[in-house]
Amino acid sequence: MTQTTRRRFLGALGALGVAAAGGGLLTACGDDDDDQALAAVATEPAEATEPAENATQAEDTHGSDEHSSNSTDTVDLDAVNEMDAMHEAGVKAFPAPTEGLGGQPLEYEMDGDVKVFKLTCQVVEKWEYAPGEYAEAWTYNGVTPGPEIRVTEGDKVRIEVTNELPESTAVHWHGLMVPNAMDGVPFITQPPIKPGETFVYEFQVREGNTGSHMYHSHHNAAEQVTKGLLGAFIVEPKDPSKYPAYDREYTLILNDGPIGGFTINGKGFPATQPVVAKLGERVLVRYMNEGLMIHPMHLHGMPQQVIAQDGYLLPQPYMCDTLNIAPGQRFDVIIEATEVGVWAFHCHILSHAESRHGMFGMVTAMIVEE
Amino acid sequence: MTQTTRRRFLGALGALGVAAAGGGLLTACGDDDDDQALAAVATEPAEATEPAENATQAEDTHGSDEHSSNSTDTVDLDAVNEMDAMHEAGVKAFPAPTEGLGGQPLEYEMDGDVKVFKLTCQVVEKWEYAPGEYAEAWTYNGVTPGPEIRVTEGDKVRIEVTNELPESTAVHWHGLMVPNAMDGVPFITQPPIKPGETFVYEFQVREGNTGSHMYHSHHNAAEQVTKGLLGAFIVEPKDPSKYPAYDREYTLILNDGPIGGFTINGKGFPATQPVVAKLGERVLVRYMNEGLMIHPMHLHGMPQQVIAQDGYLLPQPYMCDTLNIAPGQRFDVIIEATEVGVWAFHCHILSHAESRHGMFGMVTAMIVEE
Amino acid sequence: MTQTTRRRFLGALGALGVAAAGGGLLTACGDDDDDQALAAVATEPAEATEPAENATQAEDTHGSDEHSSNSTDTVDLDAVNEMDAMHEAGVKAFPAPTEGLGGQPLEYEMDGDVKVFKLTCQVVEKWEYAPGEYAEAWTYNGVTPGPEIRVTEGDKVRIEVTNELPESTAVHWHGLMVPNAMDGVPFITQPPIKPGETFVYEFQVREGNTGSHMYHSHHNAAEQVTKGLLGAFIVEPKDPSKYPAYDREYTLILNDGPIGGFTINGKGFPATQPVVAKLGERVLVRYMNEGLMIHPMHLHGMPQQVIAQDGYLLPQPYMCDTLNIAPGQRFDVIIEATEVGVWAFHCHILSHAESRHGMFGMVTAMIVEE
Repeated sequence: MTQTTRRRFLGALGALGVAAAGGGLLTACGDDDDDQALAAVATEPAEATEPAENATQAEDTHGSDEHSSNSTDTVDLDAVNEMDAMHEAGVKAFPAPTEGLGGQPLEYEMDGDVKVFKLTCQVVEKWEYAPGEYAEAWTYNGVTPGPEIRVTEGDKVRIEVTNELPESTAVHWHGLMVPNAMDGVPFITQPPIKPGETFVYEFQVREGNTGSHMYHSHHNAAEQVTKGLLGAFIVEPKDPSKYPAYDREYTLILNDGPIGGFTINGKGFPATQPVVAKLGERVLVRYMNEGLMIHPMHLHGMPQQVIAQDGYLLPQPYMCDTLNIAPGQRFDVIIEATEVGVWAFHCHILSHAESRHGMFGMVTAMIVEE
Repeated sequence: MTQTTRRRFLGALGALGVAAAGGGLLTACGDDDDDQALAAVATEPAEATEPAENATQAEDTHGSDEHSSNSTDTVDLDAVNEMDAMHEAGVKAFPAPTEGLGGQPLEYEMDGDVKVFKLTCQVVEKWEYAPGEYAEAWTYNGVTPGPEIRVTEGDKVRIEVTNELPESTAVHWHGLMVPNAMDGVPFITQPPIKPGETFVYEFQVREGNTGSHMYHSHHNAAEQVTKGLLGAFIVEPKDPSKYPAYDREYTLILNDGPIGGFTINGKGFPATQPVVAKLGERVLVRYMNEGLMIHPMHLHGMPQQVIAQDGYLLPQPYMCDTLNIAPGQRFDVIIEATEVGVWAFHCHILSHAESRHGMFGMVTAMIVEE
Repeated sequence: MTQTTRRRFLGALGALGVAAAGGGLLTACGDDDDDQALAAVATEPAEATEPAENATQAEDTHGSDEHSSNSTDTVDLDAVNEMDAMHEAGVKAFPAPTEGLGGQPLEYEMDGDVKVFKLTCQVVEKWEYAPGEYAEAWTYNGVTPGPEIRVTEGDKVRIEVTNELPESTAVHWHGLMVPNAMDGVPFITQPPIKPGETFVYEFQVREGNTGSHMYHSHHNAAEQVTKGLLGAFIVEPKDPSKYPAYDREYTLILNDGPIGGFTINGKGFPATQPVVAKLGERVLVRYMNEGLMIHPMHLHGMPQQVIAQDGYLLPQPYMCDTLNIAPGQRFDVIIEATEVGVWAFHCHILSHAESRHGMFGMVTAMIVEE
């Protein structure tokens, strides 16, 4: 990697936009396995003789010297290079194109003063959650996460939910205060929506019930949600001045289903989408955990200011670099894009993010362009 | 479900009280599988021909079209109805009567100015943690959670603990500041209480050490506590004005032992007790996690205001709808009962709350009556 | 245990310091299994006849009486005593001497105005994580946690990392805001450091980037970090008045690797080091979670005031007795040493702290001397 290459890469990003950039954003780094010179630092091979001596010593004292160290001349360098090549291939592929992209805005039609959305619950037999890796997904409108529903405080909304699944289902508006009959819990607030049926939810979004919410199945939910029946439901305040200012926003929905594994917005690294910003921008990230495990999300390079929890502005925002998000929780954070570069951004349960074969799962990057 | 039926149900609840209500509180919903008409919404069967077309298309494009959707005419409706019936049966049974109820107030006797409580550690061979489901429980006074100890700031208390278990034990007063010798940790602060022995704990509850605390075994505790040797220890402030006002309170003790599984106050859904309130009341919920896992508790319909952590009033309360509670933690929240109806209330690790057979484990409901 | 013995013990601790105290700190308690007399309390054997009656009753009502209790005369007292002896042996051994101690200050040399640190990544074949229990550790400078790097806000630092592992590696400065090329993520910010190579990290610690941070591997990290490639990186403020005052400090790094299990600073109980303070002192504890699981740390006897998260001072500190720490997170807490005695201090996921064989893993003690 050279500074020039990195600048070209970032420049290209700025010109093309991320969506157009396709795969290979990070190929600027490590183009050549042998090219390890950096401007400010040096990588020096250790002297050949010293490790050899250590190795002998280690063998002699085997079992008694806790400080015996591996020798580099007994190392299987082929295996090392093979492992590193797998790691590199993953990074070079990022953001890898895959079929299907969830979380895009859901169009609506107006019926008088009511915004009418349509969701169809569908099985997708082959959801490409990582390049060339497929799992059956249960989706709203063919994607997971389902399309983003975005309305404004006070809006009247109607959501027509049609069930094309092989099971009954129902939709819960997680975080929204709705009339009881619209709450989406089979046999408590409604009958289940059986295969082939349509159920119509209708409610007015309450004053003050703004922020980052979710919708998901509430029937056989441990299976249906982790398989993909989930999406973001975002309520913008009527008066934007009531919410901290930001220049761009991203929603990161976390899932950890038995099928498809650890995903951000339905994709595992390197098929995850990066968080992109220009230097100096304030970036809003909306975290939503739809999985069964906690995920402490760690951003490199810049801190996160936590401003809202479950849609409620915190009376006292706080700073962190690793934010723990439990199932069902949402957090809004502001990141000031003060540091140019490509910054790793991942769940810090490291087994959700990296294996011997390289990074996977809950990993993305924040890319700050000059 | 009809509004009338629901009103009758809520009216009955108000008149009888929850304890007297027995099973079947929620049978108002889904009395008849075919009765799916709701006042404001309509459930419409999809047209028969359209899914059939989809099905053909899906077969034709198998393996290439990620949007292939299941057809409703290939759906096994018997299996669907069978699954739904299991879900319905669980809800209809709620709150299901079971034998044994923990967490009820523990009587005490005065010895001079000392409140004297008695706890006997006992094995209960068949604790009915869900209707017809039994596990061996290790209990204080025959129930899990053990009876609630409730005192006032500054009180002098004595607790006589008799061990009728087949193992030694000891009791730790989790959250209370007690003299070291009263702290209940075998070989650090006391000898273990061997089978057949009685150990007497005595201490004065400190000024300021108010709020939601716990007592539990601190000997072979990973086993003894998860089997049931746990209870609430609540300290009321001398001056109630120092604590936010509330109209009713509930304590929800979470456990996830290998035996008995995911429980709230020793019972799994539908044997859990509902949280009941009248419209407009402020309800205090004291969460206590005595298990080995986190449990993010999600209430539908109304937010939770978090006012205290581990008995300490928060300098800055905050709002949420999903509160993550880790083992050993306690949180006090205030819920304003502003929404009439029956609202699901459950751990949002969905696998702790629902299976293909319906809701189970860490599920209850908040019932707000007019 | 007698008060005299305990006082002698505490006095000795004060005179010798903890490091010199060796094993057996807690033998003051339970020297004699039969000596169970305490000043204020009495342990009374239950009357022989009563449990016998209970036993008969229990047998008669087997299967129908949920309150049947075990009888002490059917108890296998040998098994009870054997279990208790194992528990006692563990406590008596605390703090047990083991070979190797991580987290000690790392010396540096000045090169002009740059502080130069050296880290060598080494396999330690036999790391004694508990008395007589060994696992292979991957270490910085032969210990896990690696040596503590401690600098001051604004310092220029250089860290020379030499890789003597059989795999490539790289070091991420978790929580520090460094130039992108110094961030330590292979193929994103640098090539991996291959076996035998040295990589030089150099950066200036930013103004305001103070507090409790970490360094660890960011290559095959789920394996390399949990095996031990981790350490504390602490940045002191230039102006100490900007940080709450304290008299002593301890860093507790939590890990839960598949090898070595549940550890605090690389050791499991009884090989963990105690937190020692004199009565009245303010003790700073820096928690750092380098494992894959949450660990809610519970201190007996005294509350914890949480003052900083991930190095950032909280705008509003709060009190607790059980602090949940997720992977990647750091918390700074202040404990006021107001209570004399030996206080259990452990992860409250009880299966991380105690088994049928006694306390192990994430257990230590806070010892407050008069």
